[in-house]
Amino acid sequence: MLYFSNDYSQGAHPEVLKRLVETNMISVNGYGEDIFCAEAKEKIKKAIGNQKAEVFFLVGGTQTNQVVINSILQKHQGVISADTGHIATHEAGAIEFTGNKVLPIKHINGKINSNDLKEYLKSFYDDENHEHMVYPGMVYISFSTEYGTIYYKDELVSLHNVCQEYQIPLYIDGARLGYGIMAEDSDVTLKDIAENCDVFYIGGTKIGALCGEAVVFTKNNVPVCFTTLIKKHGALLSKGRLLGVQFDVLFTDDLYFKISKHAVDMASYLRKGLKEKGYKFFIENKTNQTFIILDNEKLKKLQEKVVVSFWEKYDENQTVIRLATCWATQKEDVEKLLKIM
Amino acid sequence: MLYFSNDYSQGAHPEVLKRLVETNMISVNGYGEDIFCAEAKEKIKKAIGNQKAEVFFLVGGTQTNQVVINSILQKHQGVISADTGHIATHEAGAIEFTGNKVLPIKHINGKINSNDLKEYLKSFYDDENHEHMVYPGMVYISFSTEYGTIYYKDELVSLHNVCQEYQIPLYIDGARLGYGIMAEDSDVTLKDIAENCDVFYIGGTKIGALCGEAVVFTKNNVPVCFTTLIKKHGALLSKGRLLGVQFDVLFTDDLYFKISKHAVDMASYLRKGLKEKGYKFFIENKTNQTFIILDNEKLKKLQEKVVVSFWEKYDENQTVIRLATCWATQKEDVEKLLKIM
Amino acid sequence: MLYFSNDYSQGAHPEVLKRLVETNMISVNGYGEDIFCAEAKEKIKKAIGNQKAEVFFLVGGTQTNQVVINSILQKHQGVISADTGHIATHEAGAIEFTGNKVLPIKHINGKINSNDLKEYLKSFYDDENHEHMVYPGMVYISFSTEYGTIYYKDELVSLHNVCQEYQIPLYIDGARLGYGIMAEDSDVTLKDIAENCDVFYIGGTKIGALCGEAVVFTKNNVPVCFTTLIKKHGALLSKGRLLGVQFDVLFTDDLYFKISKHAVDMASYLRKGLKEKGYKFFIENKTNQTFIILDNEKLKKLQEKVVVSFWEKYDENQTVIRLATCWATQKEDVEKLLKIM
Amino acid sequence: MLYFSNDYSQGAHPEVLKRLVETNMISVNGYGEDIFCAEAKEKIKKAIGNQKAEVFFLVGGTQTNQVVINSILQKHQGVISADTGHIATHEAGAIEFTGNKVLPIKHINGKINSNDLKEYLKSFYDDENHEHMVYPGMVYISFSTEYGTIYYKDELVSLHNVCQEYQIPLYIDGARLGYGIMAEDSDVTLKDIAENCDVFYIGGTKIGALCGEAVVFTKNNVPVCFTTLIKKHGALLSKGRLLGVQFDVLFTDDLYFKISKHAVDMASYLRKGLKEKGYKFFIENKTNQTFIILDNEKLKKLQEKVVVSFWEKYDENQTVIRLATCWATQKEDVEKLLKIM
Repeated sequence: MLYFSNDYSQGAHPEVLKRLVETNMISVNGYGEDIFCAEAKEKIKKAIGNQKAEVFFLVGGTQTNQVVINSILQKHQGVISADTGHIATHEAGAIEFTGNKVLPIKHINGKINSNDLKEYLKSFYDDENHEHMVYPGMVYISFSTEYGTIYYKDELVSLHNVCQEYQIPLYIDGARLGYGIMAEDSDVTLKDIAENCDVFYIGGTKIGALCGEAVVFTKNNVPVCFTTLIKKHGALLSKGRLLGVQFDVLFTDDLYFKISKHAVDMASYLRKGLKEKGYKFFIENKTNQTFIILDNEKLKKLQEKVVVSFWEKYDENQTVIRLATCWATQKEDVEKLLKIM
Repeated sequence: MLYFSNDYSQGAHPEVLKRLVETNMISVNGYGEDIFCAEAKEKIKKAIGNQKAEVFFLVGGTQTNQVVINSILQKHQGVISADTGHIATHEAGAIEFTGNKVLPIKHINGKINSNDLKEYLKSFYDDENHEHMVYPGMVYISFSTEYGTIYYKDELVSLHNVCQEYQIPLYIDGARLGYGIMAEDSDVTLKDIAENCDVFYIGGTKIGALCGEAVVFTKNNVPVCFTTLIKKHGALLSKGRLLGVQFDVLFTDDLYFKISKHAVDMASYLRKGLKEKGYKFFIENKTNQTFIILDNEKLKKLQEKVVVSFWEKYDENQTVIRLATCWATQKEDVEKLLKIM
Repeated sequence: MLYFSNDYSQGAHPEVLKRLVETNMISVNGYGEDIFCAEAKEKIKKAIGNQKAEVFFLVGGTQTNQVVINSILQKHQGVISADTGHIATHEAGAIEFTGNKVLPIKHINGKINSNDLKEYLKSFYDDENHEHMVYPGMVYISFSTEYGTIYYKDELVSLHNVCQEYQIPLYIDGARLGYGIMAEDSDVTLKDIAENCDVFYIGGTKIGALCGEAVVFTKNNVPVCFTTLIKKHGALLSKGRLLGVQFDVLFTDDLYFKISKHAVDMASYLRKGLKEKGYKFFIENKTNQTFIILDNEKLKKLQEKVVVSFWEKYDENQTVIRLATCWATQKEDVEKLLKIM
Repeated sequence: MLYFSNDYSQGAHPEVLKRLVETNMISVNGYGEDIFCAEAKEKIKKAIGNQKAEVFFLVGGTQTNQVVINSILQKHQGVISADTGHIATHEAGAIEFTGNKVLPIKHINGKINSNDLKEYLKSFYDDENHEHMVYPGMVYISFSTEYGTIYYKDELVSLHNVCQEYQIPLYIDGARLGYGIMAEDSDVTLKDIAENCDVFYIGGTKIGALCGEAVVFTKNNVPVCFTTLIKKHGALLSKGRLLGVQFDVLFTDDLYFKISKHAVDMASYLRKGLKEKGYKFFIENKTNQTFIILDNEKLKKLQEKVVVSFWEKYDENQTVIRLATCWATQKEDVEKLLKIM
């Protein structure tokens, strides 16, 4: 079987594994108080060009969203998200479970428009009954988005400006940060990300690591006793070294971006082939995810040879599927896939 | 520096790493729906001698306690624990964070006595005001305990009997399950554990894995939609394979028990040496953890060469420290430590 | 000033107060275990024609929604509501605060359409990723709705049928139940309400009481240890008699319905007058609430003499306001209002 | 039957009811934005001699504890309480339900000793593992306590000093505040209470009101958007007037203290009689609650004529019971009770 269902079907980038093996028997302290985490943090701070940034390592994406959002929001506040945002749809209510409402805004291609955001915030404070409502206390966006789209730099700056006007933090879910930054049409760098938000995370799980996400606070805004909060969420890894070693490798010699670019290249190659074959795209985008509309019967046949992701029903007879590439995707696999399709 | 502070100072057992490398590029489904998890589950079920058991893999201990306890308790219930239990002391309020009260019972050497438990439960229902109180809905014990002690088989059976009499589940936190089962004085097997409780977990993090705990439900009692509940807790790993591969190795050729025994042997060797040197023990126990009472000045000197765990102040001039061995402890390191001390 | 802003601007119906005075010095047990509560429960059960129903008294509407929803939902579930539902908008996140997601469905005049509901539920289970989503575990509707509209009997039956098909309870927020049942165009009786849902509450606060809502479980479905759950929510009143006495009076000689009808009559009279004067209605409805669209300047002037409710901005120059009547509204006050307008 | 089981067996003080009747038809705004609440707040601020204090009205005691504690605590913190404190024992886990751990300290006659508190706090910060523990973020005491005892002024000042040293607020649960202040042996005034804590509540439910507690913040320390937080807890009463009117009356002409004194006088009279008859007291105290130890058979007989409160089993043959007086207790009822006993 060919796997194009997602970007977490294989293990870790070989360099990551190699370093885990090399460092395996070195004794260090637990809970992230080790030299590998320290080294990885330094490299990340250098990569984002902000020595004052503070970095924490967590294990997975939903966990990271839950910890960050719950730790930052004040008690009368909720988090604004596109109605297609991961926290609004596919985290099984993890945000609400810890007491916080997700405030959905209509998405445009998976993105929040800064005018819509401004209008939402203005309306909230104009509403004379807002004391009985959940205050917007944070804006959540994903980069790249759940639809594989990205915010361009001017869009990101606009969103951040609106957030600053209303004095609420902008949080970027970077589960696929590398794939977004290295998108064909991206004009956004890691430094741009760091500058134009208040907290974000660099996704490792989908980009070369076995597991792990690096949360970065860039505005001297780490929540009080954040390590205790992480523990309270059941999210503090004893062997923090596992995360430190991996991010150390990913941020050595630009590995993170190189493998992200590879995944995007593979996706572009795939999209080119699909276009030539006349496939119908559900959305236009230029990151590692590709969404196409397939006849249900054709889909069934395809699934005999390829593992793909069900995305949503398009209509009674057609289905939207996702084809994802990643750091591990081989060109020959793309060619096989194109041949099959 | 010598590390005797805990049992998570090194990476994973070499066999575990080796298998992670070997399987790295095999493509599989995410979220634990992979062949490695399936294989590991089969081996665990075989090891406990219960084909109907159901196994789930989680990442860490506090996370596991939070997920299991929150998923099992009914809404009017709390969880009974020794007042020294990990959930009662060192999980930063993770259980309460998700809405559940920990009901402490006085410990005896880190253990709950079944008569005390029975008395607690009887008193609760005798109390005419108990409708205004948190109902005891579960009993939590750790094996081995936070003090490195173990329950003997008759104690375990007694506890379980009391639980059954009051129709509440017994949950065993097995973060150090292997070290408990392989303790010098243990008369408890893995099968005994599985038979005499309702749910338990097999700790991987402290016994050979990079991370990972295997939750086992033995009484056809998996909570409804448990995978969704795990996700809601932010505890569902995308690359579930990471956990599956590790437990597959640990439960191949009894590796889990062999390395547990090694750790216990090292601890016995250490204790023998310490006894000969006249050290004062804080508690008598025969697992991988050793607790001794040291003069504060002597401790300071020791810490120049050895990393140890602060446990608690004994009095103004003395401190209780923990010396932990694990699967990775070398005999020569124990000898070095004894020489230093 | 004239008060038409809401239906809780005055105290209690005089009969209610009179009975509170009469019974004041009678000694009874606390927490609802008193003769007044017992008597009121009997009268309510008689009124709904179901001797097996179980009745509990709570203090306020948001509290009742929070307690009922949190107590009924299973841990993987959320509650479906119209996107205009009170729990989705004006309860400051009370439902999410206790861990449960509100799942919004697009409203039609404040109501959920049973086809939309069915489509929502079908889609959920058709979605291959629904294990990562919040399961719909309950349907919440309000009767009358936040827009003063009502469900007709066939609509109610359809909704309940869909719920039963998917085996989830239908919960009716009856903060304004009397005003809905006695609406000019209503074909729904209290018995219809009780039969066609699984749990509902009879609002007292807005219909003659100082405070108080009566929750009714009609399908042998009281949550386990419900009194303890109420206590856990901080919602158990020591002097439960206060609620019992009030509902006893309200359900004696049909007082609840008589005063509800009076409020509706006053609203009809008001609407007739407004129509004649050419006012623009925001929504057509026949309960005690009236929504009109006013020029902002006209509104300002009106507010010099009348207290009205801001509802929402209609556009830059116009505002939607609510004019509410209640059991206490005097005909002459309506006439004064019409004269002013 | 004679009722001595508690201090909430009757309705409200007649003056309170009278004023509710008088003001019943006056139209006012909802949610506490009315003249009655405003007036009551002024009177309370005058009574405590602090014009900058801020007052909020809530409905019941457990609700108040839940709202205040949850609103004040930071996310890594829990609340210290005597192990006999109401929040630690008889609130069905309401504090934990909203995510906060109760940190118990051994009581002495229902009270926390300031040295014990200091030792607790010192130990916490001395513990090198405290980052994995719940931080003490608040101290909760009740005045009078669950055992009917009171803190003397020097004890209160000592506790507050320790709290200030560790920069955590002291919160006083005043469900029975009047009965404590007016205790025979009390040297504490309402002003002393207000000065020597950071937030407290004046209990109405047990002292003359139908329901209602007045929360007072005295150190310019109202939580951000507190009204929204109250709403989020489901604790915001629509007809806030109900609470305002009652506290207005209670704080007119010292009614609150006069009726509190009456209750204490009745209890003293009762205790004198019981002493003469040779009854064994479970605890010595001088407020409105009396705790005696009775043979179980004698208790059974007593219960044929008197409603008393079960407190706890003393041993196999004896039971501790509570006899409570209140504002409504008649001298002749005490005499009847003494005759029966």
